Amino acid sequence: MKKLWHHCHAATMTGGKYSVIEDAAILTGGARIEWIGPRAAAPDFGDVEHIDLDGAWVTPGLIDCHTHLVFGGDRSGEFEERLEGVSYAEIAARGGGIASTVRATREASEDALFEAAKARALGLLREGVTMLEVKSGYGLDLANERKMLAVARRLGATLPLNVRATCLAAHALPPEYANRADDYIAYICDEMLPALAAEGLVDAVDAFCEHIAFSPQQVERVFRCARDLGVPVKLHAEQLSSLHGSSLAARYRALSADHLEYMTDDDAAAMAQSGTVAVLLPGAFYMLRETQLPPIDALRRHGVPIALASDLNPGTSPALSLRLMLNMGCTLFRLTPEEALAGVTNHAAQALGLQATHGSLEAGKAADFVAWRIGRPAELSYWLGGVLPGRVVRGGSQVDIERIA
Amino acid sequence: MKKLWHHCHAATMTGGKYSVIEDAAILTGGARIEWIGPRAAAPDFGDVEHIDLDGAWVTPGLIDCHTHLVFGGDRSGEFEERLEGVSYAEIAARGGGIASTVRATREASEDALFEAAKARALGLLREGVTMLEVKSGYGLDLANERKMLAVARRLGATLPLNVRATCLAAHALPPEYANRADDYIAYICDEMLPALAAEGLVDAVDAFCEHIAFSPQQVERVFRCARDLGVPVKLHAEQLSSLHGSSLAARYRALSADHLEYMTDDDAAAMAQSGTVAVLLPGAFYMLRETQLPPIDALRRHGVPIALASDLNPGTSPALSLRLMLNMGCTLFRLTPEEALAGVTNHAAQALGLQATHGSLEAGKAADFVAWRIGRPAELSYWLGGVLPGRVVRGGSQVDIERIA
Ligand SMILES: [Zn+2]
Ligand SMILES: [Zn+2]
Repeated sequence: MKKLWHHCHAATMTGGKYSVIEDAAILTGGARIEWIGPRAAAPDFGDVEHIDLDGAWVTPGLIDCHTHLVFGGDRSGEFEERLEGVSYAEIAARGGGIASTVRATREASEDALFEAAKARALGLLREGVTMLEVKSGYGLDLANERKMLAVARRLGATLPLNVRATCLAAHALPPEYANRADDYIAYICDEMLPALAAEGLVDAVDAFCEHIAFSPQQVERVFRCARDLGVPVKLHAEQLSSLHGSSLAARYRALSADHLEYMTDDDAAAMAQSGTVAVLLPGAFYMLRETQLPPIDALRRHGVPIALASDLNPGTSPALSLRLMLNMGCTLFRLTPEEALAGVTNHAAQALGLQATHGSLEAGKAADFVAWRIGRPAELSYWLGGVLPGRVVRGGSQVDIERIA
Repeated sequence: MKKLWHHCHAATMTGGKYSVIEDAAILTGGARIEWIGPRAAAPDFGDVEHIDLDGAWVTPGLIDCHTHLVFGGDRSGEFEERLEGVSYAEIAARGGGIASTVRATREASEDALFEAAKARALGLLREGVTMLEVKSGYGLDLANERKMLAVARRLGATLPLNVRATCLAAHALPPEYANRADDYIAYICDEMLPALAAEGLVDAVDAFCEHIAFSPQQVERVFRCARDLGVPVKLHAEQLSSLHGSSLAARYRALSADHLEYMTDDDAAAMAQSGTVAVLLPGAFYMLRETQLPPIDALRRHGVPIALASDLNPGTSPALSLRLMLNMGCTLFRLTPEEALAGVTNHAAQALGLQATHGSLEAGKAADFVAWRIGRPAELSYWLGGVLPGRVVRGGSQVDIERIA
């Protein structure tokens, strides 16, 4: 039976603004929104189930558009050693850092990776996330990248969450290719991407463009390969230095360029022109105690859509909360709460290429939403940490998280 | 029946260190720990209930030793206005800032304050907090300070949480005493504190020593009054400037001095001598984007016990999570995870004068603990945001939070 959700206000996020409907009603049929508007303007829908939302504020389900949520082990031991005074060089010399996560991920079974990732995904779901992106990039060979992407697919198939899988084979150089970065890029382009794409495991292709990772030339080879395969691209760019990866991403009409602390005004102009979303990752900025802020004013001036994501990963952002990123986006980057909320709804959907079906509350879009027991939408950014109470609705059905967990 | 909790490791936090017991067993009788040690060394306890903790790490229940968790309204509207470019002066001119919280708190019924505070306290309990301190300080007259302290008492009486009530009448100048700070201090000392203490509502007395609040001379009058009433003191000191409030607090053998960004080496020496705990509040530091770090090295060098707290308040730290403060203590203040955990257990108990009964896992102390599904204690500081899974045990009984909420 169709459902009429009422006794609520809605921040629909249409057009990336709150676009508030006071005293709203939402008609869902199956997994879609069939009608949304002021309750007083609702036509007679006939025999439908009425659901009273007790005066809640309804927003689109939150979307975490940049995570590395599938990984083996964790790096809490290193985190502790660093704070106890052990140098980064010493930790790296013993095979720490990302190398240790690659090792642990390769050693882990698919089931073990799935169980650990599921616990993290459920934590996100509990706080209102109904869609998330998962990147590979700790396998770094065909079998292990496949294993990571298969876990992403299994998360989407078994949890009430939409999960998008991004192949980030060009994340770091695996030990067996030490000093042979070009050979590794060739392996990615000639073997890994074609095979993984053919298996239906790749919704997008990503790379890490940085002096400690891959050069713009190497990234461009990966992008060309993705284009030949018909898969959209994304890029980790300008996190630590300015290599104009974001302009390169724009040339390939990337869905998003992510991090962007060191991007230039010209990069922003290029992204605006290609419709590439700027995905900001305040968790990594905070954990690394960065001081170079992403150029928010340039992004605003050029009209680049801004998204926010957790970057959930075991090294630079062990962030188990997307809502915390709203507060960090406001506090650290000076986004407004409205921009921050658009960054995890409308613009996050766009960063995944799904703006036609997700990210705002409109007739025809997915019935993925959260009914929050709050007094105004800004509270989603204002409260620091913790879990705000609310009901999570995905595909038109209220999610019973305790039953799943 | 007595309970034997086993199949776990324990970070007992005895002496403010992890003080790990691997493969531990904990015997509880009623609300107390009767025995704790390596399981292999456990004597025959006879007929007891065995509880398998599935390999969890057990820590003392977390203690949030500095909160302003009882308040009317919230300041999310102001938070949003500031980020949209409205100046602080303009907000203050319209009666914003702490004045708006005082107004909302005075207007709220005791029941309304209780319900809002209960929701926040349950959020803390859910993540492992079994004791918290609540300050008054938004009533600023006898009836309204009493109302706030009564809510604190009611939280403790109705939730599975130990709640300590601190009278912070000297928090700000109420509008009816504008430009008459000395008169307000006299009112506090002559009427409010004696009455509230006589009613059994005051476990400690606190004040805000700062150029925007009360002078050291005014604070000292409050401290003398508290001493005459036999109530221990605490102080908000050196948050924005150096007035040597922490040395003043030490002279009155304060339980704690809190904030401390601008304290000097001499202040630290004075606190060490008086056994006054340094309570650091990284949430406020973060939200205010402060750059002056509290002098951690001086505190370590002088042997001042360091605690961490949420400072949960609607203005400068709307922090709904104490565990997030562990990460912030490490990331922003460079505490080690062991220091951070001591800061919300052992040293937090000392900041409340309860180190004899709480804050570590030892025979004779309260059976308040958390069994965390983690691989090492450092994970409590490492993960950023979110809720880590675990069971919360308070007074020897596992807390069923879903049933309470
Ligand atoms: Zn990333
Ligand atoms: Zn405070």
